[in-house]
Amino acid sequence: MKKEHISAWFQSLQDDICTEINNLENKNVFQEDRWEREGGGGGRSRAITGEIIEKGGVNFSAVHGKMPSKIANALGIAPNNFFATGVSIVLHPKNPMLPIIHMNVRYFETDQGDWWFGGGIDVTPHYVDINDAIFFHSFLKEKCDSYGDQWYPKFKTWADDYFFIKHRNETRGIGGIFFDRVNDKEFGSKESCFDFVMDIGNSFVPIYITLAERHKNKSYTKSNQEWQYLRRSRYVEFNLVWDRGTKFGLDTNGRTESILMSMPPRAHWVYDHQVVLGSPEDKTQNLLVKGIDWINYKEE
Amino acid sequence: MKKEHISAWFQSLQDDICTEINNLENKNVFQEDRWEREGGGGGRSRAITGEIIEKGGVNFSAVHGKMPSKIANALGIAPNNFFATGVSIVLHPKNPMLPIIHMNVRYFETDQGDWWFGGGIDVTPHYVDINDAIFFHSFLKEKCDSYGDQWYPKFKTWADDYFFIKHRNETRGIGGIFFDRVNDKEFGSKESCFDFVMDIGNSFVPIYITLAERHKNKSYTKSNQEWQYLRRSRYVEFNLVWDRGTKFGLDTNGRTESILMSMPPRAHWVYDHQVVLGSPEDKTQNLLVKGIDWINYKEE
Repeated sequence: MKKEHISAWFQSLQDDICTEINNLENKNVFQEDRWEREGGGGGRSRAITGEIIEKGGVNFSAVHGKMPSKIANALGIAPNNFFATGVSIVLHPKNPMLPIIHMNVRYFETDQGDWWFGGGIDVTPHYVDINDAIFFHSFLKEKCDSYGDQWYPKFKTWADDYFFIKHRNETRGIGGIFFDRVNDKEFGSKESCFDFVMDIGNSFVPIYITLAERHKNKSYTKSNQEWQYLRRSRYVEFNLVWDRGTKFGLDTNGRTESILMSMPPRAHWVYDHQVVLGSPEDKTQNLLVKGIDWINYKEE
Repeated sequence: MKKEHISAWFQSLQDDICTEINNLENKNVFQEDRWEREGGGGGRSRAITGEIIEKGGVNFSAVHGKMPSKIANALGIAPNNFFATGVSIVLHPKNPMLPIIHMNVRYFETDQGDWWFGGGIDVTPHYVDINDAIFFHSFLKEKCDSYGDQWYPKFKTWADDYFFIKHRNETRGIGGIFFDRVNDKEFGSKESCFDFVMDIGNSFVPIYITLAERHKNKSYTKSNQEWQYLRRSRYVEFNLVWDRGTKFGLDTNGRTESILMSMPPRAHWVYDHQVVLGSPEDKTQNLLVKGIDWINYKEE
């Protein structure tokens, strides 16, 4: 399994996802920027401005070079030449009834033989829809289960812990799965790891297209939109304060415009905002907690 | 100089500033929340919703207790009982011609006899106005100079370095002054330190009222406002990614709503936004660099 093979697959995943988003939007909504990294490698950033997706990005990168000692320390490995490739997506829909989605799949190796995969996919509804949550988590569980029963519970819990806005004491959304530094110790072989990562990458389109078809034409009010802008500000807070990928990128002179493609087009902050008891916003707020077994969730 | 004396002065500074802001707005624009800290102490948060100041806060706090070892490590001192008090202000005006302003004055001591003052004041214009910059920096220089010629250049440079958005390679605005861990080694005595901090605290009202009177009634366009929302998103990025006070507060379970009072009411992100060459926005962008000698700045 050569690194070129992995990065080529990631690149084709980017293409496939962009094609499907263009189909959904019924036109080309992407602006592509190719960039090169000073230390080696580069990427293809694709920013979206659409009718359904108000703002978002589907980014591919494959970078290599001498690892800064700061990064080696953070990873707990000796400074080496490294290679890293991946695809990152964040979509901020216009319609508040359609959730924000994020996916990342990545591969990392050093010339000393260390290697691992990482990734995750999580959904941030402005309004939690239980049927969506059941569909999304069931889909992920099925993908995970074909590699062993242990993975969905492990990676689902990891997502609950990772996509957590500590200073708000709330999850970013309904979670999903998250995994990092996964290699043959977990999956038996590199091929099996890569198969898993490809399965997750390929899940993006059926998941988001399903959600988009369900909600893209739903009507909404000014007040729904106001709540969407508040939820987006929480998304900003998570990404800028807690997301390790964002912090790492900004701290190591990554391409800022590609890293911050995850920012929403518009966000609002209101001092000490309180939801109305019993409202749909209140219901959503109460579901932003860790440890919900979405697949078996029963509405009261 | 007892700590109670210092915190009482900070509390009266908060009152004075709120009175002047209410005078400017011609009504009471503050919502006050008193809060207590689990480990000891508490504060008075005052959030603004006004006609001139769209959103902002004037916060006072005085907290004490056992210092978490994480904080002691970060400060490079032994874990002790500590006491910290201060006033923090951020104002986001409605009119894009009026700048954002921030001020913080603070005092810290441990029961082992360590103590210091810190603080700063900086201005973030959406559109840089050279006359404002000259007025603002001249005002600060005069205050600093009465304690010695060295302080304005030192604290002005410190502000340039501190209020810097590294991942954008731009300053947050036109800077101001910033200082930290200042004690009798710098100012000869604790009294003299406190005098300086009081002078800076008392500068807030004459500075901001002058700027507000100059610009509060200026007309502006939709496109000015759009630029304001973009500049605000940079403010968000600075505060959440780089501001040590914000990070420290969020990391140590401070009161989130008080810490994030610095967030703007509304912010926009646009992928790879480019200003029009030669436009007022371009002019401002070009002035967001370190090391400008504002007092002697000559427009070309």
